[in-house]
Amino acid sequence: MPNSKLRTALAEQMRDIYWAERKLIDTLPKLAEAAEDTDLIEGLEMHLEETRGQVKRLERAFEALGLQARAETCEAMKGLIEEGEGVLEKHEKGLLRDALIIATCQKVEHYEIATYGTLCEWAGVLELEDVKTLLGENLQQEEAADQKLSEVAKAINQSAAMA
Amino acid sequence: MPNSKLRTALAEQMRDIYWAERKLIDTLPKLAEAAEDTDLIEGLEMHLEETRGQVKRLERAFEALGLQARAETCEAMKGLIEEGEGVLEKHEKGLLRDALIIATCQKVEHYEIATYGTLCEWAGVLELEDVKTLLGENLQQEEAADQKLSEVAKAINQSAAMA
Repeated sequence: MPNSKLRTALAEQMRDIYWAERKLIDTLPKLAEAAEDTDLIEGLEMHLEETRGQVKRLERAFEALGLQARAETCEAMKGLIEEGEGVLEKHEKGLLRDALIIATCQKVEHYEIATYGTLCEWAGVLELEDVKTLLGENLQQEEAADQKLSEVAKAINQSAAMA
Repeated sequence: MPNSKLRTALAEQMRDIYWAERKLIDTLPKLAEAAEDTDLIEGLEMHLEETRGQVKRLERAFEALGLQARAETCEAMKGLIEEGEGVLEKHEKGLLRDALIIATCQKVEHYEIATYGTLCEWAGVLELEDVKTLLGENLQQEEAADQKLSEVAKAINQSAAMA
Protein backbone atom coordinates (compact mmCIF):
# COMPACT_ATOMS: atom_id res chain seq x y z
CA MET A 1 0.00 0.00 0.00
CA PRO A 2 2.72 2.52 -0.95
CA ASN A 3 0.28 5.26 -1.98
CA SER A 4 -2.25 4.76 0.78
CA LYS A 5 -3.51 8.00 2.34
CA LEU A 6 -2.98 6.43 5.76
CA ARG A 7 0.69 6.05 4.88
CA THR A 8 0.81 9.80 4.13
CA ALA A 9 -0.87 10.49 7.48
CA LEU A 10 1.70 8.23 9.18
CA ALA A 11 4.56 10.27 7.71
CA GLU A 12 2.85 13.53 8.78
CA GLN A 13 2.44 12.37 12.38
CA MET A 14 6.05 11.14 12.36
CA ARG A 15 7.19 14.68 11.45
CA ASP A 16 5.20 16.01 14.39
CA ILE A 17 6.71 13.62 16.95
CA TYR A 18 10.17 14.06 15.37
CA TRP A 19 9.85 17.79 16.09
CA ALA A 20 8.68 17.02 19.62
CA GLU A 21 11.55 14.62 20.42
CA ARG A 22 14.18 17.00 19.09
CA LYS A 23 12.69 19.87 21.09
CA LEU A 24 12.87 17.67 24.20
CA ILE A 25 16.63 17.20 23.67
CA ASP A 26 16.90 20.98 24.26
CA THR A 27 14.42 21.05 27.13
CA LEU A 28 15.29 18.02 29.28
CA PRO A 29 18.75 19.37 30.32
CA LYS A 30 17.09 22.64 31.46
CA LEU A 31 14.59 20.68 33.54
CA ALA A 32 17.35 18.49 35.03
CA GLU A 33 19.36 21.58 35.98
CA ALA A 34 16.30 23.18 37.55
CA ALA A 35 15.40 20.10 39.62
CA GLU A 36 16.52 19.45 43.20
CA ASP A 37 15.79 15.78 43.91
CA THR A 38 18.68 13.49 42.91
CA ASP A 39 16.43 10.67 41.67
CA LEU A 40 14.50 13.12 39.51
CA ILE A 41 17.72 14.60 38.05
CA GLU A 42 19.03 11.11 37.27
CA GLY A 43 15.71 10.10 35.71
CA LEU A 44 15.64 13.19 33.48
CA GLU A 45 19.26 12.66 32.39
CA MET A 46 18.58 9.02 31.63
CA HIS A 47 15.51 9.98 29.60
CA LEU A 48 17.60 12.53 27.67
CA GLU A 49 19.83 9.68 26.51
CA GLU A 50 16.77 7.60 25.59
CA THR A 51 15.32 10.55 23.66
CA ARG A 52 18.51 10.81 21.58
CA GLY A 53 18.04 7.12 20.68
CA GLN A 54 14.36 7.75 19.86
CA VAL A 55 15.31 10.49 17.40
CA LYS A 56 17.68 8.04 15.69
CA ARG A 57 14.94 5.38 15.54
CA LEU A 58 12.56 7.90 13.97
CA GLU A 59 15.23 8.71 11.37
CA ARG A 60 15.51 4.99 10.57
CA ALA A 61 11.71 4.79 10.29
CA PHE A 62 11.68 7.71 7.79
CA GLU A 63 14.40 5.90 5.85
CA ALA A 64 12.33 2.70 5.84
CA LEU A 65 9.51 4.73 4.26
CA GLY A 66 11.91 6.09 1.64
CA LEU A 67 11.56 9.59 3.06
CA GLN A 68 13.95 12.17 4.39
CA ALA A 69 13.52 12.89 8.11
CA ARG A 70 11.73 16.22 8.51
CA ALA A 71 10.30 17.99 11.53
CA GLU A 72 7.05 19.95 11.62
CA THR A 73 6.11 22.11 14.59
CA CYS A 74 3.87 20.29 17.02
CA GLU A 75 1.63 22.92 18.67
CA ALA A 76 0.56 20.70 21.55
CA MET A 77 4.14 19.89 22.55
CA LYS A 78 5.04 23.56 22.17
CA GLY A 79 2.28 24.34 24.69
CA LEU A 80 3.52 21.66 27.08
CA ILE A 81 7.09 22.93 26.91
CA GLU A 82 5.94 26.52 27.51
CA GLU A 83 4.06 25.21 30.56
CA GLY A 84 7.30 23.59 31.78
CA GLU A 85 9.31 26.77 31.25
CA GLY A 86 6.64 28.73 33.11
CA VAL A 87 7.13 26.41 36.10
CA LEU A 88 10.86 27.22 36.18
CA GLU A 89 10.23 30.96 36.01
CA LYS A 90 7.49 30.97 38.62
CA HIS A 91 8.94 28.65 41.26
CA GLU A 92 12.33 28.52 42.99
CA LYS A 93 14.36 25.33 43.17
CA GLY A 94 12.75 22.94 45.63
CA LEU A 95 10.20 20.21 46.15
CA LEU A 96 7.22 22.07 44.74
CA ARG A 97 9.11 22.88 41.54
CA ASP A 98 10.14 19.22 41.35
CA ALA A 99 6.51 18.09 41.72
CA LEU A 100 5.49 20.48 38.93
CA ILE A 101 8.37 19.36 36.67
CA ILE A 102 7.15 15.78 37.09
CA ALA A 103 3.56 16.80 36.31
CA THR A 104 4.67 18.46 33.06
CA CYS A 105 6.93 15.56 32.09
CA GLN A 106 4.12 13.05 32.62
CA LYS A 107 1.90 15.09 30.28
CA VAL A 108 4.72 14.98 27.73
CA GLU A 109 5.13 11.20 28.17
CA HIS A 110 1.40 10.67 27.72
CA TYR A 111 1.39 12.81 24.58
CA GLU A 112 4.13 10.58 23.21
CA ILE A 113 2.42 7.36 24.36
CA ALA A 114 -0.76 8.39 22.50
CA THR A 115 1.19 9.32 19.36
CA TYR A 116 3.40 6.23 19.21
CA GLY A 117 0.38 4.06 20.06
CA THR A 118 -1.47 5.38 17.00
CA LEU A 119 1.63 5.19 14.77
CA CYS A 120 2.27 1.55 15.72
CA GLU A 121 -1.33 0.64 14.92
CA TRP A 122 -1.14 2.41 11.56
CA ALA A 123 2.25 0.86 10.71
CA GLY A 124 0.73 -2.53 11.59
CA VAL A 125 -2.27 -2.26 9.26
CA LEU A 126 0.03 -0.85 6.55
CA GLU A 127 2.21 -3.96 6.98
CA LEU A 128 5.29 -1.82 7.65
CA GLU A 129 6.80 -4.22 10.17
CA ASP A 130 10.19 -2.46 10.44
CA VAL A 131 8.54 0.92 11.13
CA LYS A 132 6.22 -0.74 13.66
CA THR A 133 9.17 -2.31 15.50
CA LEU A 134 11.17 0.94 15.64
CA LEU A 135 8.24 3.02 16.88
CA GLY A 136 7.18 0.23 19.25
CA GLU A 137 10.57 0.48 20.96
CA ASN A 138 10.05 4.22 21.43
CA LEU A 139 6.55 3.53 22.81
CA GLN A 140 7.89 1.07 25.39
CA GLN A 141 10.54 3.55 26.54
CA GLU A 142 7.93 6.28 26.99
CA GLU A 143 5.68 3.97 29.02
CA ALA A 144 8.63 2.98 31.23
CA ALA A 145 9.65 6.65 31.65
CA ASP A 146 6.11 7.52 32.77
CA GLN A 147 6.15 4.68 35.34
CA LYS A 148 9.55 5.77 36.63
CA LEU A 149 8.29 9.36 37.05
CA SER A 150 5.29 8.09 39.04
CA GLU A 151 7.68 6.27 41.40
CA VAL A 152 10.02 9.24 41.82
CA ALA A 153 6.99 11.47 42.44
CA LYS A 154 5.80 9.58 45.54
CA ALA A 155 8.48 10.85 47.97
CA ILE A 156 8.58 14.31 46.39
CA ASN A 157 4.80 14.80 46.62
CA GLN A 158 4.73 13.68 50.26
CA SER A 159 7.38 16.27 51.18
CA ALA A 160 5.89 18.97 48.93
CA ALA A 161 2.54 18.57 50.72
CA MET A 162 4.24 19.55 54.01
CA ALA A 163 6.09 22.55 52.53
CA MET B 1 -2.38 21.41 55.15
CA PRO B 2 -4.73 24.21 54.09
CA ASN B 3 -1.90 26.60 53.13
CA SER B 4 0.40 24.09 51.53
CA LYS B 5 1.96 25.25 48.27
CA LEU B 6 1.05 21.91 46.75
CA ARG B 7 -2.58 22.71 47.46
CA THR B 8 -2.16 25.97 45.51
CA ALA B 9 -0.57 24.00 42.66
CA LEU B 10 -3.50 21.56 42.76
CA ALA B 11 -5.99 24.41 42.34
CA GLU B 12 -3.92 25.86 39.46
CA GLN B 13 -3.85 22.55 37.59
CA MET B 14 -7.58 22.14 38.23
CA ARG B 15 -8.20 25.51 36.50
CA ASP B 16 -6.21 24.24 33.52
CA ILE B 17 -8.15 20.98 33.14
CA TYR B 18 -11.44 22.82 33.85
CA TRP B 19 -10.67 25.03 30.83
CA ALA B 20 -9.79 21.95 28.78
CA GLU B 21 -13.00 20.05 29.65
CA ARG B 22 -15.22 23.03 28.92
CA LYS B 23 -13.45 23.59 25.61
CA LEU B 24 -14.10 19.94 24.75
CA ILE B 25 -17.84 20.45 25.27
CA ASP B 26 -17.63 22.85 22.29
CA THR B 27 -15.32 20.66 20.23
CA LEU B 28 -16.72 17.13 20.61
CA PRO B 29 -20.01 17.88 18.77
CA LYS B 30 -17.98 19.29 15.83
CA LEU B 31 -15.88 16.14 15.71
CA ALA B 32 -18.97 13.91 15.92
CA GLU B 33 -20.60 15.81 13.06
CA ALA B 34 -17.42 15.52 10.96
CA ALA B 35 -17.06 11.77 11.54
CA GLU B 36 -18.45 9.05 9.26
CA ASP B 37 -18.24 5.80 11.21
CA THR B 38 -21.34 5.16 13.33
CA ASP B 39 -19.42 3.62 16.26
CA LEU B 40 -17.09 6.61 16.32
CA ILE B 41 -19.99 9.08 16.25
CA GLU B 42 -21.72 7.22 19.10
CA GLY B 43 -18.47 7.10 21.09
CA LEU B 44 -17.90 10.84 20.68
CA GLU B 45 -21.50 11.63 21.66
CA MET B 46 -21.24 9.38 24.72
CA HIS B 47 -17.99 11.06 25.73
CA LEU B 48 -19.62 14.48 25.36
CA GLU B 49 -22.15 13.45 28.00
CA GLU B 50 -19.35 12.15 30.23
CA THR B 51 -17.42 15.40 29.76
CA ARG B 52 -20.44 17.39 30.98
CA GLY B 53 -20.40 15.24 34.12
CA GLN B 54 -16.65 15.75 34.50
CA VAL B 55 -17.09 19.54 34.46
CA LYS B 56 -19.69 19.20 37.26
CA ARG B 57 -17.30 16.98 39.27
CA LEU B 58 -14.54 19.55 38.87
CA GLU B 59 -16.94 22.24 40.14
CA ARG B 60 -17.67 20.09 43.18
CA ALA B 61 -13.92 19.63 43.72
CA PHE B 62 -13.37 23.41 43.63
CA GLU B 63 -16.21 23.75 46.14
CA ALA B 64 -14.58 21.14 48.40
CA LEU B 65 -11.42 23.30 48.36
CA GLY B 66 -13.49 26.36 49.29
CA LEU B 67 -12.76 27.94 45.90
CA GLN B 68 -14.86 29.28 43.07
CA ALA B 69 -14.53 27.26 39.85
CA ARG B 70 -12.33 29.20 37.45
CA ALA B 71 -10.85 28.27 34.07
CA GLU B 72 -7.38 29.22 32.88
CA THR B 73 -6.30 28.70 29.27
CA CYS B 74 -4.46 25.45 28.78
CA GLU B 75 -1.98 25.99 25.93
CA ALA B 76 -1.37 22.28 25.33
CA MET B 77 -5.07 21.51 24.93
CA LYS B 78 -5.45 24.58 22.72
CA GLY B 79 -2.73 23.10 20.47
CA LEU B 80 -4.45 19.71 20.42
CA ILE B 81 -7.81 21.21 19.51
CA GLU B 82 -6.21 23.29 16.72
CA GLU B 83 -4.70 20.06 15.43
CA GLY B 84 -8.17 18.47 15.45
CA GLU B 85 -9.71 21.43 13.63
CA GLY B 86 -6.89 21.27 11.06
CA VAL B 87 -7.85 17.65 10.36
CA LEU B 88 -11.43 18.68 9.58
CA GLU B 89 -10.31 21.46 7.23
CA LYS B 90 -7.72 19.35 5.44
CA HIS B 91 -9.62 16.08 4.93
CA GLU B 92 -13.05 15.30 3.58
CA LYS B 93 -15.52 13.11 5.44
CA GLY B 94 -14.36 9.50 5.27
CA LEU B 95 -12.25 6.81 6.87
CA LEU B 96 -8.97 8.71 6.82
CA ARG B 97 -10.56 11.68 8.57
CA ASP B 98 -12.06 9.27 11.10
CA ALA B 99 -8.63 7.73 11.75
CA LEU B 100 -7.17 11.21 12.30
CA ILE B 101 -10.05 12.28 14.56
CA ILE B 102 -9.34 9.20 16.71
CA ALA B 103 -5.60 10.00 16.78
CA THR B 104 -6.31 13.52 18.05
CA CYS B 105 -8.90 12.35 20.58
CA GLN B 106 -6.47 9.78 22.01
CA LYS B 107 -3.88 12.55 22.50
CA VAL B 108 -6.56 14.54 24.31
CA GLU B 109 -7.49 11.52 26.49
CA HIS B 110 -3.84 10.94 27.37
CA TYR B 111 -3.39 14.60 28.28
CA GLU B 112 -6.33 14.25 30.65
CA ILE B 113 -5.13 10.90 32.02
CA ALA B 114 -1.75 12.46 32.88
CA THR B 115 -3.38 15.50 34.49
CA TYR B 116 -5.96 13.63 36.56
CA GLY B 117 -3.31 11.07 37.54
CA THR B 118 -1.15 13.83 39.01
CA LEU B 119 -4.12 15.59 40.63
CA CYS B 120 -5.31 12.37 42.33
CA GLU B 121 -1.80 11.77 43.72
CA TRP B 122 -1.59 15.32 45.03
CA ALA B 123 -5.11 15.21 46.52
CA GLY B 124 -4.10 11.93 48.21
CA VAL B 125 -0.96 13.30 49.92
CA LEU B 126 -2.90 16.44 50.86
CA GLU B 127 -5.51 14.16 52.50
CA LEU B 128 -8.31 15.70 50.43
CA GLU B 129 -10.26 12.46 50.09
CA ASP B 130 -13.38 14.01 48.55
CA VAL B 131 -11.33 15.80 45.86
CA LYS B 132 -9.39 12.60 45.19
CA THR B 133 -12.62 10.61 44.72
CA LEU B 134 -14.17 13.16 42.34
CA LEU B 135 -11.04 13.47 40.19
CA GLY B 136 -10.49 9.72 40.34
CA GLU B 137 -13.92 9.20 38.74
CA ASN B 138 -12.92 11.56 35.91
CA LEU B 139 -9.62 9.67 35.52
CA GLN B 140 -11.41 6.33 35.18
CA GLN B 141 -13.75 7.73 32.54
CA GLU B 142 -10.84 9.08 30.51
CA GLU B 143 -9.02 5.74 30.67
CA ALA B 144 -12.18 3.93 29.54
CA ALA B 145 -12.73 6.46 26.72
CA ASP B 146 -9.16 5.89 25.48
CA GLN B 147 -9.71 2.11 25.47
CA LYS B 148 -12.99 2.50 23.63
CA LEU B 149 -11.31 4.67 20.96
CA SER B 150 -8.60 2.01 20.48
CA GLU B 151 -11.34 -0.57 19.84
CA VAL B 152 -13.28 1.64 17.43
CA ALA B 153 -10.00 2.46 15.63
CA LYS B 154 -9.27 -1.15 14.65
CA ALA B 155 -11.84 -1.50 11.86
CA ILE B 156 -11.41 2.11 10.72
CA ASN B 157 -7.60 1.82 10.42
CA GLN B 158 -7.89 -1.42 8.47
CA SER B 159 -10.21 0.18 5.92
CA ALA B 160 -8.25 3.48 5.85
CA ALA B 161 -5.08 1.55 4.98
CA MET B 162 -6.81 0.31 1.80
CA ALA B 163 -8.13 3.75 0.80
